[in-house]
Amino acid sequence: MPKISSKGTRMPASPIRKLTPYADQAKRDGKKVYHLNIGQPDIQTPDVMLDAIKNISFKVWAYTPSEGTLSYRTRLTGYYNDLGYHIQPQDVIVTNGGSEAITIAMQTCLDAGDEVIIPEPFYANYNGFACMGDVVVKPILSHIENGFALPPVAEFEKVITERTRAIMICNPNNPTGYLYSRRELEDLKALCLKYDLYLFSDEAYREFCYDGRQFESPMHLEGMEENVIVLDTVSKRYSACGARLGCIITKNKAVIASALKFAQARLSPGMVAQIAGEAAVDTPASYFETVNREYTERRDLIVSSLNRIPGVFCPNPGGAFYVVARFPIDDADKFCQWILESFSYKNQTVMMAPATGFYSTPGAGRNEVRLAYVLNKEDIAAAMLCLEKALTEYPGKA
Amino acid sequence: MPKISSKGTRMPASPIRKLTPYADQAKRDGKKVYHLNIGQPDIQTPDVMLDAIKNISFKVWAYTPSEGTLSYRTRLTGYYNDLGYHIQPQDVIVTNGGSEAITIAMQTCLDAGDEVIIPEPFYANYNGFACMGDVVVKPILSHIENGFALPPVAEFEKVITERTRAIMICNPNNPTGYLYSRRELEDLKALCLKYDLYLFSDEAYREFCYDGRQFESPMHLEGMEENVIVLDTVSKRYSACGARLGCIITKNKAVIASALKFAQARLSPGMVAQIAGEAAVDTPASYFETVNREYTERRDLIVSSLNRIPGVFCPNPGGAFYVVARFPIDDADKFCQWILESFSYKNQTVMMAPATGFYSTPGAGRNEVRLAYVLNKEDIAAAMLCLEKALTEYPGKA
Repeated sequence: MPKISSKGTRMPASPIRKLTPYADQAKRDGKKVYHLNIGQPDIQTPDVMLDAIKNISFKVWAYTPSEGTLSYRTRLTGYYNDLGYHIQPQDVIVTNGGSEAITIAMQTCLDAGDEVIIPEPFYANYNGFACMGDVVVKPILSHIENGFALPPVAEFEKVITERTRAIMICNPNNPTGYLYSRRELEDLKALCLKYDLYLFSDEAYREFCYDGRQFESPMHLEGMEENVIVLDTVSKRYSACGARLGCIITKNKAVIASALKFAQARLSPGMVAQIAGEAAVDTPASYFETVNREYTERRDLIVSSLNRIPGVFCPNPGGAFYVVARFPIDDADKFCQWILESFSYKNQTVMMAPATGFYSTPGAGRNEVRLAYVLNKEDIAAAMLCLEKALTEYPGKA
Repeated sequence: MPKISSKGTRMPASPIRKLTPYADQAKRDGKKVYHLNIGQPDIQTPDVMLDAIKNISFKVWAYTPSEGTLSYRTRLTGYYNDLGYHIQPQDVIVTNGGSEAITIAMQTCLDAGDEVIIPEPFYANYNGFACMGDVVVKPILSHIENGFALPPVAEFEKVITERTRAIMICNPNNPTGYLYSRRELEDLKALCLKYDLYLFSDEAYREFCYDGRQFESPMHLEGMEENVIVLDTVSKRYSACGARLGCIITKNKAVIASALKFAQARLSPGMVAQIAGEAAVDTPASYFETVNREYTERRDLIVSSLNRIPGVFCPNPGGAFYVVARFPIDDADKFCQWILESFSYKNQTVMMAPATGFYSTPGAGRNEVRLAYVLNKEDIAAAMLCLEKALTEYPGKA
């Protein structure tokens, strides 16, 4: 029997899905499970997108150009230029989801053995994408005490080697919700220019900034046009995760030319998704206002509920729809399994993602958990009550 | 300015798209261009699929399971079991197009430096997928004289090394249209068992077999269940290239488990595509009968027209919708550019794909061209007339 590749063996399983069998069992046992573990929003997709799907008029479901249709890229350009990105349609390559945007960008910029620096905790699938290209992730720790702010420049410089090719950030951050400041981006710019590095800016959660704070992108910084590669998706912006529609944006023409070859090999992004994505640009501002008001209220509720629980600490993040909280426990993996397997309160329990899956430094985040506030406030309140009871009963209290 | 990766530099550009600027110029010059260069069928997508898109009822365009929805995999299983594959839904992973099925299968089974043997000419993007994983393609020549039949087992054995992990076939073949026989598949089975190799079976053109010939899959062979990985797509079957919906099928549970990790990293295949794909299984048999009758007539027309042109030789292939023909010319790349750039007949010209792009042995296929019969018969007849005139005028006649 032929063997799996060593890459196939090393490839990390999704840490978010590791607990699924326990959640399934809990449901079979008749428990109600509050899912705070994944970033699947419960928010409705804008009507303009759904209507665009229902109103398709083509007779042949054909390939589109590998870089995406000109009409979609043109509309997207309008969206980004309203944000001050100053781009043209030829600076955009449309991808099958943000995931493909990341894999193509990595392949275009990093060879096997090359290194990318990522502040941790970070989105767990970055490990998988790096594994695909035999790229080495160099994590540097950010800390819950300061809300997971960007680590100081000196920490980056400690791990820069001759194989370092890129720094990657997710802004606002998954899993921490941290929103990077202009000042922090300026620090990254100085680093990238000094060491000739790419800055991969994963902006999947761009629309979700709270308390009147402004989203800042490295696309707003002058003088690093050749270094910045934005990785984006409509998944969270329009609650359209199942569209699998993302893009790569860069003013670096050599990167676009090379990324296009990877895009050509896989032929085409989805046609219906692009039709819907084009319509989505007309989503009214009121949609985002309503959604952001809802998320702000949920965040306020989850953060205040968590901080009221004895021994729990949760920073109040500026964006996305996640928080990482510190619990008074021995081991987040054990706790998140125990609460599904061995605990219930009024026949309810909670599914969360142990933060260990978002760290690549062994042992880091052992008492931290990521919670996605993708449920309505009533459910969040019930889940928090459940969690509070669980933390008093948990045998592995710290 | 940071540099592109060496992989990004090595990554081959699509040979089919190389001539696009010349075709665009020809159109600007007012010429009608017959597109025989790409595999985008002009056939209508079945109504059941288009209706399924128009009738979506979801309100949140959500992720589906990474392996695809159970309902779609269940329907697919029915389709494959009607073909005698004897599979279950857990033997299937749904992918973003056949392209992703190939990249995931390669990553799962081959490490950097590992080798896959592919009879050439072969689908050009295999080179790109191999490049992504730093996999080495070992081509072995098939020959136009015998219609591009499978090369003898001895030819495979000549190139097998300790790094060989897989053999890859496309059946019916793109670009040659060759339909592999049961006997040839048995030969491959013996090789795979003897040397412990995977057999990647790209079956994108399965539905397109002519002259009453039966499609044979390695899934029909007993005793190589752990070796066979089928790579499939709805693109050609239902003329739904823009759906980006494919799948990996294997009874090898270790392969499925590892491939699932790659699928989890990219989260999900498209949701609308799966809804439409599920509906597509109900496409009436009359649809395929009509389509196959049409393709048979087109193939008969293009093959007989080509063989009537002095100096041209074109085998009569059993499947797909391509032919590779030998022309009396010095260089197919030059000829295919010249016919767009410097030739017209009644203000018309033809776009074709030089076969060189489908060979990886340097110099092979220099006087061969791939023609896709994806136009109606009237257009094919006009294109053939055009081509005949061009071959008399071409300055690089051999």
